[in-house]
Amino acid sequence: MKSLEKALSGYKGKAAEALRRARVSVGDNIRITKGNQIYEGTLFPRSEYADDRHIVIKLRNGYNVGIQWSNGTVIEFMSKGEKPQFTSPPRPEERPKLPRVSIMSTGGTIASRVDYRTGAVQPALTAEDLYCFVPEISDIARIDAKILCSEFSENIGPNHWRDMAQATATELKNGAEGVVFSHGTDTMGYTAAALSFALRNLSSPVVLVGAQRSSDRPSSDAAPNLIAATAIAARASFAEVVVAMHEASSDEYVTIHRGTRVRKCHTSARDAFRTMDPEPLGRFDLRNLHLEVFAETFQSRDPSKSVEVVADFEEKVALLKFHPNFNPAVIDWYQEKEYRGLVLEGTGLGHVGRACFEPLKRALGSGLLVGMTSQCIWGAVDMNVYETGRDLLAMGIISLGDMIPETAYVKMMWVLGQTTDLAKAREMMMTNVTGEASQRRLLQS
Amino acid sequence: MKSLEKALSGYKGKAAEALRRARVSVGDNIRITKGNQIYEGTLFPRSEYADDRHIVIKLRNGYNVGIQWSNGTVIEFMSKGEKPQFTSPPRPEERPKLPRVSIMSTGGTIASRVDYRTGAVQPALTAEDLYCFVPEISDIARIDAKILCSEFSENIGPNHWRDMAQATATELKNGAEGVVFSHGTDTMGYTAAALSFALRNLSSPVVLVGAQRSSDRPSSDAAPNLIAATAIAARASFAEVVVAMHEASSDEYVTIHRGTRVRKCHTSARDAFRTMDPEPLGRFDLRNLHLEVFAETFQSRDPSKSVEVVADFEEKVALLKFHPNFNPAVIDWYQEKEYRGLVLEGTGLGHVGRACFEPLKRALGSGLLVGMTSQCIWGAVDMNVYETGRDLLAMGIISLGDMIPETAYVKMMWVLGQTTDLAKAREMMMTNVTGEASQRRLLQS
Repeated sequence: MKSLEKALSGYKGKAAEALRRARVSVGDNIRITKGNQIYEGTLFPRSEYADDRHIVIKLRNGYNVGIQWSNGTVIEFMSKGEKPQFTSPPRPEERPKLPRVSIMSTGGTIASRVDYRTGAVQPALTAEDLYCFVPEISDIARIDAKILCSEFSENIGPNHWRDMAQATATELKNGAEGVVFSHGTDTMGYTAAALSFALRNLSSPVVLVGAQRSSDRPSSDAAPNLIAATAIAARASFAEVVVAMHEASSDEYVTIHRGTRVRKCHTSARDAFRTMDPEPLGRFDLRNLHLEVFAETFQSRDPSKSVEVVADFEEKVALLKFHPNFNPAVIDWYQEKEYRGLVLEGTGLGHVGRACFEPLKRALGSGLLVGMTSQCIWGAVDMNVYETGRDLLAMGIISLGDMIPETAYVKMMWVLGQTTDLAKAREMMMTNVTGEASQRRLLQS
Repeated sequence: MKSLEKALSGYKGKAAEALRRARVSVGDNIRITKGNQIYEGTLFPRSEYADDRHIVIKLRNGYNVGIQWSNGTVIEFMSKGEKPQFTSPPRPEERPKLPRVSIMSTGGTIASRVDYRTGAVQPALTAEDLYCFVPEISDIARIDAKILCSEFSENIGPNHWRDMAQATATELKNGAEGVVFSHGTDTMGYTAAALSFALRNLSSPVVLVGAQRSSDRPSSDAAPNLIAATAIAARASFAEVVVAMHEASSDEYVTIHRGTRVRKCHTSARDAFRTMDPEPLGRFDLRNLHLEVFAETFQSRDPSKSVEVVADFEEKVALLKFHPNFNPAVIDWYQEKEYRGLVLEGTGLGHVGRACFEPLKRALGSGLLVGMTSQCIWGAVDMNVYETGRDLLAMGIISLGDMIPETAYVKMMWVLGQTTDLAKAREMMMTNVTGEASQRRLLQS
């Protein structure tokens, strides 16, 4: 450990210049005004790997934010603070008793120096940066950090899923005892489902984490979510793919959602993620760092296991939401484009209008796999209740029980990535692989 | 009023034969076993208009069910009941002080003799049938009943919406003081939105009602829902299009949802319908028949108003749910099919992958109206937060605030049914018409 003594430890370039002009030193209480946002806190030092544009302050709520300096940013001295003895992050070998966790960034806001999606794309994720933003994590685990890609999550698809699955296997083989992926929240549920299917015989937890509010905002959930995700990866007794996100608007709990049962249910709230029945897998108490598992059965952590990557996803699969006045000709269009599978998001217990019947028969006749889910959010399809459902079942449409549409779509891509045998694909769709559906409900049809 | 004296009052044909063989009379406590279902209750008389196959019993929970007799149905005598003096429904002119309510059936299970979707399609809705199933409603209003159509709700579309709007106007002009539509629950939200837009300058409440459990099941919600819907149509102080459905799994309350803010959120539960923020318009207490309005502002009942029907819906509009690996070529396909509008169900705050950008630009360039909503269920889109959203806004995509995707889709059909002027259509999409969105959020973009 070395003490950082200089007045502007680690700051360089434009950031250092601006701080010098404002006559502030590391440890001072300062106010930074940028646009409509006002930040007040203690000026934090930067590591030797830091860039030359960000100023890091510790807010009163205990978390650090990185503010990108630009023309118009106003820095004001408020009061002299006690000159702190900041320390560099301990190197992994200095804390041999802590578990090793690999944190990989795919482009979410959580671990970027600044929210790169607002313009300044700088997802430079080093162990030093992470430590600077969330110093607590180095008390939880020995961290290895990597940048895997830098994508807005709406651009993440099957190729990224494959890369993430392979990177997980590599990290685990190299000694990581848990893996964390930071990921944009928009499509995190889809990616979590994809990894749940792609990582067979998993030895350790794989945790997807994100932030609903970017890390340069005082209300950011980045720090608590990352602390929880790191602790879950390091210590959880389960070896499953999960999403760790805020439970409520307070900072008390982070919920642990199973990767195949989770959905982003609110556009902006910090507690946007929900397990779509039954209960979440567990939760993490941020006040005492206690990890509680609710699920009665789960795949246990087992270091003797060796993960198998099954990450071929068929891209010629679509998810179609039915609605009144739905144009059934679009079903023919997918058939003409040589699609191999369709997941329908039908109404209620699993229905589509009768105008879709003939195009669906043609699609099924030409060898497409067609599955039925519901746009209802909660509950399960049951295609035996009404005539429409029975007609669709008789055609050969697969009733997907309580599988959520997003997971059903990802699963069908995964199934068709493994087999060209329709009967086998059908059987796989109707067999619970990793908690994506209740087996009893799948067998109802 | 006339007393029904005969042992099998009103029963004829096969039903009467079966009851005679079982040696039971009207008023007796009997048990009927059909398949896995067992029904116990008091044998109820039928009206002179009844069919020859249904047996009606009053269950212990107070509601009546109609059970279709078939080979294998077992009828058993349990105990002698007090021979009741059942009465025919009063004719409207006999209760001059009660409000007049028109109940029209579109094919929902609620008012059919039996769940017609399970096979026996018999939505013969007469005032006598209604009274037989739910005698309470004739204490609430003078009922006129009509069959408008007999459709599974997944087949209901713009033509039915127009017919329903026109029928509403006719009934109100002929003296009805409120209108009830029974409707399948699957697409009830879409229809409620359509009627909300189509019925301008409404004088009286229009209530859509359905049943999640068909009326031949002991757990049916048909009766309480219909009682509430009738009372709301008869007595509510508002003149809006609403959905009246069970609030919880108990029989205490029926929630009153605004037609543009309601969604079926569970495939099978009795409390499947939810108002997607803010609060529901109100609720109806089934225990004391009290109607409570939560909303601070609403369109008031005003008999001096004369409803205007604006029910042209453009059919060349589609609702597209975005997902990872979404094929952007489908956007071009809709353009080639001369579509006039697309509502996107994007991720998070209103995003789609960058692969969609060029097809969207082509669509917008050729004059399509494109609106953005979120697949998150709750919250509002805000396309100013991230670069993707700003790019999409700059292209000309309309940010639809907190409008739910289903309502946005119906509204775009309605808007494009009224104008070919794109600027006018755009302005209409961004102006709150009937509570479908917060005006403040619409103006954010």
